[in-house]
Amino acid sequence: MTIPKNHKPALGVCYYPEHWPEAMWGDDATRMVAMGLSWVRIGEFAWSRIEPQPSEFRWDWLDRAIQTLGDAGLKIIMSTPTATPPRWMVDRYPDMVAWDRHGRPRGFGSRRHYDFSHAEYREECVRITTILGERYGRNPHVHAWQLDNEYGCHDTTLSYSPVARAAFQDWLRDKYKSVAALNDRWGNVFWSMDYQRFDQIELPNLTVTEPNPAHAMDFRRFASSQVVAFNAAQEAALRPLTDAPLLHNYMGRVTDFDHFAVGANLDIATWDSYPLGFLEDRSDRDVDFKRDHRRCGDPDFQAFHHDLYRAVGKGRWWVMEQQPGPVNWAPHNPEPAPGMVRLWALEAIAHGAEVVCFFRWRQAPFAQEQNHAGLLRPDGKLSEGGDEVAALANELAGLPNLSIKAARTAIVFDYASQWAWEVQPQDAQFDYFRLVYDLYCGLRRAGHSVDILPPTTTDFGDRDRIFIPGLFAWPQALRAAVYGFSGEVVMGPRTGSRTDDFKFPMTLPPGLAGLKVTAVETLRADAHVTLQDGGMIQIWRERIESTWDVVEADLDGRSVRLSNGHLIYWAGWPDAAALDRWLGGTASDARHRETVSGATSIDYMTASFSVSP
Amino acid sequence: MTIPKNHKPALGVCYYPEHWPEAMWGDDATRMVAMGLSWVRIGEFAWSRIEPQPSEFRWDWLDRAIQTLGDAGLKIIMSTPTATPPRWMVDRYPDMVAWDRHGRPRGFGSRRHYDFSHAEYREECVRITTILGERYGRNPHVHAWQLDNEYGCHDTTLSYSPVARAAFQDWLRDKYKSVAALNDRWGNVFWSMDYQRFDQIELPNLTVTEPNPAHAMDFRRFASSQVVAFNAAQEAALRPLTDAPLLHNYMGRVTDFDHFAVGANLDIATWDSYPLGFLEDRSDRDVDFKRDHRRCGDPDFQAFHHDLYRAVGKGRWWVMEQQPGPVNWAPHNPEPAPGMVRLWALEAIAHGAEVVCFFRWRQAPFAQEQNHAGLLRPDGKLSEGGDEVAALANELAGLPNLSIKAARTAIVFDYASQWAWEVQPQDAQFDYFRLVYDLYCGLRRAGHSVDILPPTTTDFGDRDRIFIPGLFAWPQALRAAVYGFSGEVVMGPRTGSRTDDFKFPMTLPPGLAGLKVTAVETLRADAHVTLQDGGMIQIWRERIESTWDVVEADLDGRSVRLSNGHLIYWAGWPDAAALDRWLGGTASDARHRETVSGATSIDYMTASFSVSP
Amino acid sequence: MTIPKNHKPALGVCYYPEHWPEAMWGDDATRMVAMGLSWVRIGEFAWSRIEPQPSEFRWDWLDRAIQTLGDAGLKIIMSTPTATPPRWMVDRYPDMVAWDRHGRPRGFGSRRHYDFSHAEYREECVRITTILGERYGRNPHVHAWQLDNEYGCHDTTLSYSPVARAAFQDWLRDKYKSVAALNDRWGNVFWSMDYQRFDQIELPNLTVTEPNPAHAMDFRRFASSQVVAFNAAQEAALRPLTDAPLLHNYMGRVTDFDHFAVGANLDIATWDSYPLGFLEDRSDRDVDFKRDHRRCGDPDFQAFHHDLYRAVGKGRWWVMEQQPGPVNWAPHNPEPAPGMVRLWALEAIAHGAEVVCFFRWRQAPFAQEQNHAGLLRPDGKLSEGGDEVAALANELAGLPNLSIKAARTAIVFDYASQWAWEVQPQDAQFDYFRLVYDLYCGLRRAGHSVDILPPTTTDFGDRDRIFIPGLFAWPQALRAAVYGFSGEVVMGPRTGSRTDDFKFPMTLPPGLAGLKVTAVETLRADAHVTLQDGGMIQIWRERIESTWDVVEADLDGRSVRLSNGHLIYWAGWPDAAALDRWLGGTASDARHRETVSGATSIDYMTASFSVSP
Repeated sequence: MTIPKNHKPALGVCYYPEHWPEAMWGDDATRMVAMGLSWVRIGEFAWSRIEPQPSEFRWDWLDRAIQTLGDAGLKIIMSTPTATPPRWMVDRYPDMVAWDRHGRPRGFGSRRHYDFSHAEYREECVRITTILGERYGRNPHVHAWQLDNEYGCHDTTLSYSPVARAAFQDWLRDKYKSVAALNDRWGNVFWSMDYQRFDQIELPNLTVTEPNPAHAMDFRRFASSQVVAFNAAQEAALRPLTDAPLLHNYMGRVTDFDHFAVGANLDIATWDSYPLGFLEDRSDRDVDFKRDHRRCGDPDFQAFHHDLYRAVGKGRWWVMEQQPGPVNWAPHNPEPAPGMVRLWALEAIAHGAEVVCFFRWRQAPFAQEQNHAGLLRPDGKLSEGGDEVAALANELAGLPNLSIKAARTAIVFDYASQWAWEVQPQDAQFDYFRLVYDLYCGLRRAGHSVDILPPTTTDFGDRDRIFIPGLFAWPQALRAAVYGFSGEVVMGPRTGSRTDDFKFPMTLPPGLAGLKVTAVETLRADAHVTLQDGGMIQIWRERIESTWDVVEADLDGRSVRLSNGHLIYWAGWPDAAALDRWLGGTASDARHRETVSGATSIDYMTASFSVSP
Repeated sequence: MTIPKNHKPALGVCYYPEHWPEAMWGDDATRMVAMGLSWVRIGEFAWSRIEPQPSEFRWDWLDRAIQTLGDAGLKIIMSTPTATPPRWMVDRYPDMVAWDRHGRPRGFGSRRHYDFSHAEYREECVRITTILGERYGRNPHVHAWQLDNEYGCHDTTLSYSPVARAAFQDWLRDKYKSVAALNDRWGNVFWSMDYQRFDQIELPNLTVTEPNPAHAMDFRRFASSQVVAFNAAQEAALRPLTDAPLLHNYMGRVTDFDHFAVGANLDIATWDSYPLGFLEDRSDRDVDFKRDHRRCGDPDFQAFHHDLYRAVGKGRWWVMEQQPGPVNWAPHNPEPAPGMVRLWALEAIAHGAEVVCFFRWRQAPFAQEQNHAGLLRPDGKLSEGGDEVAALANELAGLPNLSIKAARTAIVFDYASQWAWEVQPQDAQFDYFRLVYDLYCGLRRAGHSVDILPPTTTDFGDRDRIFIPGLFAWPQALRAAVYGFSGEVVMGPRTGSRTDDFKFPMTLPPGLAGLKVTAVETLRADAHVTLQDGGMIQIWRERIESTWDVVEADLDGRSVRLSNGHLIYWAGWPDAAALDRWLGGTASDARHRETVSGATSIDYMTASFSVSP
Repeated sequence: MTIPKNHKPALGVCYYPEHWPEAMWGDDATRMVAMGLSWVRIGEFAWSRIEPQPSEFRWDWLDRAIQTLGDAGLKIIMSTPTATPPRWMVDRYPDMVAWDRHGRPRGFGSRRHYDFSHAEYREECVRITTILGERYGRNPHVHAWQLDNEYGCHDTTLSYSPVARAAFQDWLRDKYKSVAALNDRWGNVFWSMDYQRFDQIELPNLTVTEPNPAHAMDFRRFASSQVVAFNAAQEAALRPLTDAPLLHNYMGRVTDFDHFAVGANLDIATWDSYPLGFLEDRSDRDVDFKRDHRRCGDPDFQAFHHDLYRAVGKGRWWVMEQQPGPVNWAPHNPEPAPGMVRLWALEAIAHGAEVVCFFRWRQAPFAQEQNHAGLLRPDGKLSEGGDEVAALANELAGLPNLSIKAARTAIVFDYASQWAWEVQPQDAQFDYFRLVYDLYCGLRRAGHSVDILPPTTTDFGDRDRIFIPGLFAWPQALRAAVYGFSGEVVMGPRTGSRTDDFKFPMTLPPGLAGLKVTAVETLRADAHVTLQDGGMIQIWRERIESTWDVVEADLDGRSVRLSNGHLIYWAGWPDAAALDRWLGGTASDARHRETVSGATSIDYMTASFSVSP
């Protein structure tokens, strides 16, 4: 994953020529370039204007838009428009829409109204991708291609439609070959859940009580595989038609498909960084934190995703949509503090972003996102965010080329573990993302830069320390890498606590020699377990039998931390105080030190960014 | 709207002869008259007893009931029974029921089980209305007619049925003529939402994410128009058959149809005043307020609706159902404090009510409302509320005739703005009713009587001050009235912030010369913006560019209040402290001063009512 | 109900031979016996392994399992497997599944996926029960039979399926004979709800607003009757085929069917005692209580159910499933404090349990309950709970035979009252179970042992005091027993407040000579009514007219407690402080004194159990 990099950070913007009179395009393009933007993304929602009726194409406007933008000096990111199938598509394939977990079809009238398992729609996507690739794949102004947009947004990965059910049954048939094998590996004997034929297997929604976790887990794997296959089909169609890099634009805290697997076929990972919206809408932070950070966002939330998508992009990653002012979709939508738009972009660059694009050029005066700020106000004047971006572009022009290097510390992040512990949380508070994110924040407080690694990692390189918290089931190669590593490996809680078939290991977790988790208890939010030297165990607590060295015990005398050579095991979920102690304290001078050469300090609360001498 | 009035307030009661043995009717009627009641409403739920089988009528009991009540000296409000279609009607038209937003038909077994868009049911209503009008339209005992009952109650304005969808498509066809015009005016290009034909347009529920707000807003307008048309059909049928005034009985805080438009065809507006039930069930007040007022209700809540329905009734309004004791439907159902039943009635009379009817005569011993108090207990004795009503009737007998006059202060209330900001709130706390109601309460604290005006107002008369907060889109005539007015007009926040097509004005809101709202932010409940001179801006805050005079700025130096001659603009939502300061302080001696001649003071907490000398 | 008893308490365990390789059975059985267990329950989820295809049976494994367990010296509780119909059954009868209140079929994939009203499935259950009875009814190792498992668990009593609707219509036809009678007794005139034919009557879900309470109440009675009939069908099939006692295994706080009616046909009642899971999941206790008791559970919750099921079993009752460690299904799943597993079992024995079985033998390594502790860990070692059980078995061996005797105090518990007040709560906080349970806890604090009596009781015997709180409607025989009793009878609040037809008594509640409840109010949680001598009235408060003696009045002078000879009436719901005062104070030395001879004191917080000399 450590790809040598030497890049000059650049800025860009999302633009929708189809939203504006053609007479405005030229001036818009000129102003973009004048502001210091070099990239422009177009086309991801334009299907109804490209192909207003089946096989009836309108190329003229798009040809001219590309020409106008390119002629002004902008590099174009062209998008496949498959996130918004036109209305006639839904008429043609009424069963193409996804069904929600209540068994209701999700209608036309917004976006992402398709089921990843729908074979004919997937073919339609290949068709439009091919046609677009043929027309613009070698266009000199097109420097990158985005496939679809924001897979999984609006809870669209999981569908409970008849189409999905049939595809799931096929997927099971392919995986298990015989229904007897499936019954055995799922443990269907448990409640007389044995099947006689694959076509009897329903999707795991609307059961009387919880379905078999192995059933639910396979459905989650299946659903993720459908996203991967959907993306791969477009990639395969487009690849021969262009030399430009292919990318997908991901969201924040979407964990219901395996981004590493989608990213495997692509050249760059990009994501949508909405610091204020995400703080209100997708954060586990408490109300005090949310109030105090309401105008700057949670610094670590962006940093975590920057590091995650750097891994998904195998070193190459961008921000495709950055919030330039208030958004329209969170419960509360404040303005960023002065300087934050600049700072967010610099934070991304410090984490290795090659490009930071802002969403969007001009605030849209119609439809769903009228209250979403742009770089321009509806009346065409620069917004506050626009002012900051213009200044930032000047500032960036003076930066040297940047490189990223591997961090000394890494965390293994495993999408399947998120699914597994959603399927079987054992405590209402248990969430894999939160477990990993708590750790990430502790590492940042301690002054560490962090790499995220996929569970397919086979070699940890020359790093100092690897963390593998909460891993559902061990890939053999990962466990081999753990044993073969020269640095420190910190595991637990809950690591290795199931087999790949979602069974409890008869020899007890975590699957490490000399250590057994003999029992688990989960803890109310008002009943943590206090530690003598400070901090507490929260949510999850394990009982250990072991030949390892006890590093720390709780007041009940039960082991909390254990070690065995380079292996360390944490037998509970530490709160922030315990975590800071375990990680070596907080490093106030190193807060938000970044991986990229040059950037040494970012202070969100004062919107300051320092470059080391 | 200022209609000269000179009336003698009267009392009445709701009665259901079909619920009681005929032997009881005579005694009941005699006791009503002896208690000082002069009006009795009957018939609104009696369809199954009037027409037990299709076209098979039972007039005998109703003829005798009317005769008995009328002979006793009571004036009868006869009702059309269309709020409770009989079971055989649903057998005949299984598709007549409304569907909820989850797509589920709402079954028979309670009331209001019809879809306003169902053409055949509307015809059935015209039929029964005509038959009733022919029979009783000239009956000397029938002094008023109520059409249906409580439109919109139980969330019945909005239906997502196939019948509603077809009617909505017709409505759109009629409004836009061509689908191209609809695509353009809705901005369907935004997410490839263009339609090719009107019959492709679904209702805006169950979309993947939020639908186009223009789509949702048109659905809200359509739904309101169906209520108007439903009512108009009954009005048209009945008008030629009677000289008695026609009325509808509205609910409290039902805002999903345009009451002004329904009221336009009618002679009187009446409403249901349930002070304790509404405090528990429909109030935004905080828990301390609710606890302290649990036995008296929120005085302003009734006052606001009295003033609103005075406007809806073009000056003529009644309370048709007043709570006489505990009700059965709120989360908690306490007894009124002693004296409150009297005081509520006097408050209504002080706001100009011609008649106050109590719901109901005798507590019902069966079905849904067994725990709803009446003037009589089930055993026939007077309840506590009944005692108060008897005393009140004596008290009223001594009052002179009363007149209402226009208030010096008025607020424009616009149902469409409620719909618009439900469709696009931008903050989870934003609610148009609450914005208006907060202002209303501030004006009451400051000692002002208030008129409510519809958005169709073209002339503010000789009033002192008009408030137009949160108006969705300017009717041209209203804007002309603003400019032509000699008094003060206070606008904002959020006033004039969209076009009628639910577009953002390219020239920026609020559509007043010399003033632009360049950006908006919304505020967490724990992050208000403090004002130097007291109070705070909450929920909604605007950024202003303007040539107007700055009356007040916040600590960030941003304009909060601005003026330009007689025009004033508020760039945020003031809390109560700021509002009191802006409105000139609270007027303790004038609290609840009423519009009617004579009444000067009502004190809810002590249940006292004073008449000025 | 007072059955002379003289039994030696025994221990047992739930075991699933079909979950384990046959090679393990022998060793498991040997270890069970060595640990001191004498009973083993098997078979309740094994249908798919007994009859993997329709009419294709696999008896070999079950024969051998029974032989192995029996030969080791264990007494077997054989179960009918009808709680988990195999997949092929659902293929055969797709309409056999229940529908939830939203109108959605509840799918295959977990358990209890059947509608109690489905006639063909009921026949299939009779078929498999008969076949099992024929094979094992006289097997010398089979000492008891369990029919189905946990009726009502996962909210499965109420079904809104077409099958249930048809059965409900038949039930109504049978009860009312004519639809005119139904209209009259339901009071359908109220909102024109009259029916013309029984087949028009829908189930009372998805109505526009609340359905007629008489309609809803009959649906609840119908649903309960279906459980009774379902159970009776199995009982009738099995009774001729075995001499062993028949039992059903009930859950905690499941109140939606009449357990007394189900139990009438059976010989023993057993239940599932999960003290920690129930505290988190089914308790009304406040957060402080839950935190403090998180490792021991709510002592009274188990005690109440022990006493309830002693009544349901007409004196004979067991615990069939006791929690031996953390469970998997509550929001938080802590470990029991050391000693609690022993103490819970002793508490049950002190209440008269003949047998306490633990769920389960070995923690299951697959399917839904992987995190549910067993007596053995997955690796075969004893868990902490297993250790305690082994010690307990030794301890029990030294106990003498035990008898139960009638308690001096009893509470009438009426399932129909629970349904009635769910149908018509009048306050969001009102819950019949909570009303009874509050009283039960007060009696326990006061040091009393308590018997629970069914509403069919006709004679209270020589007890000291009977409580009948919140009774929906008086059975004539119960009222006669009240008047004929020589001890004290405490009634109210809300007792006798409806007729059997869910009508309000025209002569006013509670149906006791000389006392009338003239009005009721309900109270917010922050607005109790303080009593002069301590404590408060909460939630429910009545206004009384009476010739009885006033024992206590509140500060408003309204009667709170009244007496008339041996009859006492409580006109409100007392909080704990008032209740303690009314019941004669708390008896610290007598806390958790048990009914059984020998046991005098159980202290949950210290896990101690004392036997009197």
